[in-house]
Amino acid sequence: MDKLSSLARFKASCPFLGRTKTSTLRTLCTASSPRFPTLSKLTEKATECPVMGPALAMRSGQMVAGYASVAGNVDVNQIHKAKGVSITSDDIGKCPHASKALAAARMADDLSAAQKRNTASKEAKAAATPSTSRPASPAPAGCPFHAAQSSSEAKSAAHPGAFDYEQFYAAELQKKHEDKSYRYFNNINRLAAKFPVAHTANPKSEVEVWCANDYLGMGNNPVVLETMHRTLDKYGHGAGGTRNIAGNASWHLNLEKELADLHRKPAALVFSSCYVANDATLSTLGSKLPGCVYFSDASNHASMIQGIKHSGAKKVIWKHNDMEDLESKLKQWPKDTPKIIAFESVYSMCGSIGPIKEICDLAEKYGAITFLDEVHAVGLYGPRGAGVAEHLDYDAYQAAGQSSDPIPGSVMDRIDIITGTLGKAYGAVGGYIAGSSRFVDMIRSYAAGFIFTTSLPPVTVAGAHASIIYQKAFNGDRQLMQWNVREVKKRFAERGIPVVPGPSHIVPVLIGDAGQAKDASDYLLQQHNIYVQAINFPTVARGEERLRFTITPGHTAEQLERAIAAVDDTFTQLGIRREADWIAEGGRCGVGMELKESAVPIWSDEQLGLTGNPADKPKTRRQGEPRMVDKRAINMARKQFEHLLGLVVEQPVSLGLGSLAGIKVKSGLGAEVQSTVAPSVESPVSAAA
Amino acid sequence: MDKLSSLARFKASCPFLGRTKTSTLRTLCTASSPRFPTLSKLTEKATECPVMGPALAMRSGQMVAGYASVAGNVDVNQIHKAKGVSITSDDIGKCPHASKALAAARMADDLSAAQKRNTASKEAKAAATPSTSRPASPAPAGCPFHAAQSSSEAKSAAHPGAFDYEQFYAAELQKKHEDKSYRYFNNINRLAAKFPVAHTANPKSEVEVWCANDYLGMGNNPVVLETMHRTLDKYGHGAGGTRNIAGNASWHLNLEKELADLHRKPAALVFSSCYVANDATLSTLGSKLPGCVYFSDASNHASMIQGIKHSGAKKVIWKHNDMEDLESKLKQWPKDTPKIIAFESVYSMCGSIGPIKEICDLAEKYGAITFLDEVHAVGLYGPRGAGVAEHLDYDAYQAAGQSSDPIPGSVMDRIDIITGTLGKAYGAVGGYIAGSSRFVDMIRSYAAGFIFTTSLPPVTVAGAHASIIYQKAFNGDRQLMQWNVREVKKRFAERGIPVVPGPSHIVPVLIGDAGQAKDASDYLLQQHNIYVQAINFPTVARGEERLRFTITPGHTAEQLERAIAAVDDTFTQLGIRREADWIAEGGRCGVGMELKESAVPIWSDEQLGLTGNPADKPKTRRQGEPRMVDKRAINMARKQFEHLLGLVVEQPVSLGLGSLAGIKVKSGLGAEVQSTVAPSVESPVSAAA
Repeated sequence: MDKLSSLARFKASCPFLGRTKTSTLRTLCTASSPRFPTLSKLTEKATECPVMGPALAMRSGQMVAGYASVAGNVDVNQIHKAKGVSITSDDIGKCPHASKALAAARMADDLSAAQKRNTASKEAKAAATPSTSRPASPAPAGCPFHAAQSSSEAKSAAHPGAFDYEQFYAAELQKKHEDKSYRYFNNINRLAAKFPVAHTANPKSEVEVWCANDYLGMGNNPVVLETMHRTLDKYGHGAGGTRNIAGNASWHLNLEKELADLHRKPAALVFSSCYVANDATLSTLGSKLPGCVYFSDASNHASMIQGIKHSGAKKVIWKHNDMEDLESKLKQWPKDTPKIIAFESVYSMCGSIGPIKEICDLAEKYGAITFLDEVHAVGLYGPRGAGVAEHLDYDAYQAAGQSSDPIPGSVMDRIDIITGTLGKAYGAVGGYIAGSSRFVDMIRSYAAGFIFTTSLPPVTVAGAHASIIYQKAFNGDRQLMQWNVREVKKRFAERGIPVVPGPSHIVPVLIGDAGQAKDASDYLLQQHNIYVQAINFPTVARGEERLRFTITPGHTAEQLERAIAAVDDTFTQLGIRREADWIAEGGRCGVGMELKESAVPIWSDEQLGLTGNPADKPKTRRQGEPRMVDKRAINMARKQFEHLLGLVVEQPVSLGLGSLAGIKVKSGLGAEVQSTVAPSVESPVSAAA
Repeated sequence: MDKLSSLARFKASCPFLGRTKTSTLRTLCTASSPRFPTLSKLTEKATECPVMGPALAMRSGQMVAGYASVAGNVDVNQIHKAKGVSITSDDIGKCPHASKALAAARMADDLSAAQKRNTASKEAKAAATPSTSRPASPAPAGCPFHAAQSSSEAKSAAHPGAFDYEQFYAAELQKKHEDKSYRYFNNINRLAAKFPVAHTANPKSEVEVWCANDYLGMGNNPVVLETMHRTLDKYGHGAGGTRNIAGNASWHLNLEKELADLHRKPAALVFSSCYVANDATLSTLGSKLPGCVYFSDASNHASMIQGIKHSGAKKVIWKHNDMEDLESKLKQWPKDTPKIIAFESVYSMCGSIGPIKEICDLAEKYGAITFLDEVHAVGLYGPRGAGVAEHLDYDAYQAAGQSSDPIPGSVMDRIDIITGTLGKAYGAVGGYIAGSSRFVDMIRSYAAGFIFTTSLPPVTVAGAHASIIYQKAFNGDRQLMQWNVREVKKRFAERGIPVVPGPSHIVPVLIGDAGQAKDASDYLLQQHNIYVQAINFPTVARGEERLRFTITPGHTAEQLERAIAAVDDTFTQLGIRREADWIAEGGRCGVGMELKESAVPIWSDEQLGLTGNPADKPKTRRQGEPRMVDKRAINMARKQFEHLLGLVVEQPVSLGLGSLAGIKVKSGLGAEVQSTVAPSVESPVSAAA
């Protein structure tokens, strides 16, 4: 390929780029636009282009700057496609703009490499590609709207005989583009005062969030934010070290005590995330227990798969939630072989729930221990939010109240190891394990992923801790969330919108096609300001692509109504298959098939408060109504932190509660809490300005 | 062993425990003391015991509740040892209290198991121990002062023929106790307003911290805290999802842009921690690059070791910082074999610095790419704090100023992959990689540890980002820190305190004995209120145990003086070997040996400002003097966040800056910043109370 003639053609066809020096282009690529700091100056400039402009405008509400380049490129393709020009990576050369942009990018690379080394030559570069690496197709990452290539990027090409690392990366990315699994991140800034609303890259452009895992809106609960502001003032930001060296504070120890209490286990241990908790715990256990065999549910989360893989232990995969299959596999091993059954309570992508009790029975029969991931359940199930294991003995645990004693023989007590997250229903970040003292102490003592890492900041730990205390004491958010979930499922069903049936809070709307799922997500965002991420392969099987809705107690009746109508419109506009179509096709993942018993909601009518006093029924929030908070739960959290933070002074102390305007107090919340809630402002700063 | 007769003996010898029911003991174990929430009621009760009381009191200032049980037990041993009774785990039975406590714990386990299953029998239990698991010695974890055993802990014993998991955990812990590598966590609560002072479990008991990795005190920098308060108000706590689903905000993208700019690379990617960054990146790269071979420095951090191991790629270890050894190993592979040289800039336990430039030379010669961990260097080296790679071309980068263009041929530009942390010098939490666009995009697209985890909270990301901007713009903290380090090293040398020589900010005081290192750390804490953690095997080699001091710009001249005198006293009291003793023994890890060129400080006199105007010399802070802040750097950070948070209103806005009292403004910081600094209070809450 003749670079100079490419450049000449390119310069001739684009009046802006053609007249601009490569060095200027690079500067524009890496410098921020003063108007839109998340965009490069070049991207801003590109909005003036008659071809790039419409494409960028179409994306501007949703795409992030870092990957906008790629999006821009994709949109160019879409524009051409709409005009009847079908473009693949192989025939990208047919598009005059795309091919020239790629040529320009390569030219810039070449110039950069030449400038640095004065050694590169076309011959050397040809030799630099070893036979093991596939030649890369022109990848969108090579677009000049992407960040400029540094000289290190051109390095491998400049070293004759060396492996071409950059070309290898490009080829790996191309694979993602080709199988449609390349991820474009949406820019979503969730606003505390407007939950569940977020702004996009542009703070003026707002969307409703329907797929976040801040399931209960605890990320903006007043006592959480109050505690965090106070902790930040007193203890600053970072922990300052590992747990062993200067990074172990009362905050971490108290949180672990709280988590142990929550699950009524003797001990708990906090990690950077539950990904790390699962990875570190499973890899440590499996590598230490002699001859250990893992029995892993086929739908387990990536973190468990990695942990098991990293342990080097044997691994047996059993069919998702299939007890017959699990037993047939367990019985193949001697009883005294160490065995770990690893599974989840709520599977987050399909909304199914693991048969925890039955798995405990098998574990006891075959001498295994149980490892239960309650990541999508803690805070959301059981009378204190300890998860599905607690929920299965709802009445017994409700009767036990706030005691931390285990209830012998209960499902939660029979589970050996529970892992959970602080980053979803608790609205924070971090993960943990809970189990026997010796087990936890062994992981604490041996797991590299725990030992050799900076511990979570006290401010984060404090926020998570306040959230747990609040949710242990208050059942209302859980009930209202599940009530809203029922409502949404019912209304989707009325309109023939296919929802994968399940007993949990997850609402997976089946699309069944990767392109349609992405298009539906884009359409909802662009046409209806509704953000719900498409879930495609490899997260779900091909043909089972979906939109995964998460419904919170914060969503209003009006938002629910609008979202359902919007999805209906999207199905119509994009011609997505409805329930009836799936029935005609014989059904898929539960949709259009006979309803299984396992799809009955795990939160019963009684547990939701539907069978008692009508005044106690959960009520979906109406637009303009403040959100519900519970005084007793707030005071319990405050009391816990008195020792470290002192008493809360009941006056308007301007501790940054400005964002908590519009909070509705549930049951007789007196002056003491109301007085700390500042007047309604979006943020104290804009209010003061 | 006759359990009943053990219980009988135990009841007879301890009037309190003997009269108390097992169920009551368990409740006391798991319930918090109302007076000391971090202690259990049982531990509090134990302070009344004539034997346990003194032991607990001795530890109360430093030990944490969660592991106080163990500490209590250890202290009992120490008391007996002091009285001439030598106790090992094997003859623990000779101690009437320890053995009875253990017997009681086992009895409680047995009762619990029996109550639950009614199936356990002594015969079955004997059979429950398979030949593969070593019988465990009585571990301190079995002490009744530890949390009560749940029925799940007694479970394996109750299942005849099953592997005894609990006994296995106990045996693994016992190994740690036996080789003295069992870790006791000190409870350290670093106070923002009193940096570098922290309180222990008791908020009234304060100590000076001399080993934290918040190297510059950025965890309490005013613009960091201001930004965090404002972000918390506007965006709440958690990110609410993974980067792909609802957890990708402008904050994350802007931080990545800032990090790319810092290292003058095209792209960067943020992870939960640098442990995760290293693990995820190395394991992804090594598993993807065909036939990849890792060349790993022998002193590399655990996270890199794990990442390389998890990749499944070949691994060649080269002698620490030994270029001859590295080259001899590199040359054994064909040039076109993908190779990654993985190493660090500052090695945190010995303070040595990797020969980065020389490694780049070898990498280019043999077709390798370079992976440089700058975790203990970012924020601390180079004119903008980009790390040692930047520092090596100090003048060129200083001249380049705040431009983000790479400098072709500079060491930093030649490095392919840089990893760093937000949790040390930047005083936050999280880690990152920086490198070429395609490389970063490939890791973003394939690394499970990045993809499947909740992203960092906006508030944390905002704090880290403000910290980086501040440190990019202000060189004074770096200079003062290195100046203080020189002072401390000089004064230690004057007193014959042996410091492992090195060119960096790390001050490793050689002790050379595991017991003495722990004792020295305990003695400094108890006698001098100085907290510096002992570093023992396996973190350092046996015989090279040390106290690792970290000196910050926040430490005062008086604190420096007191710490040096305290260490001197500790060496005298405990009879620890001084420089002269090491010389007599022939030296160890550089101490008492001929000084190498590599021990010359990497921050030159000129870079520290010692050769120019005497007024510009760094000055160690004096007691009572406020800490230094830089107006320009504060304003640069504020400007960056205007787009998202709005303008800072220059009036006392009570944004929680109470803890920032006593900040000294460096260069003409005008009314606009001073006016946001609240009057001197420890925390707004206590001030208001």
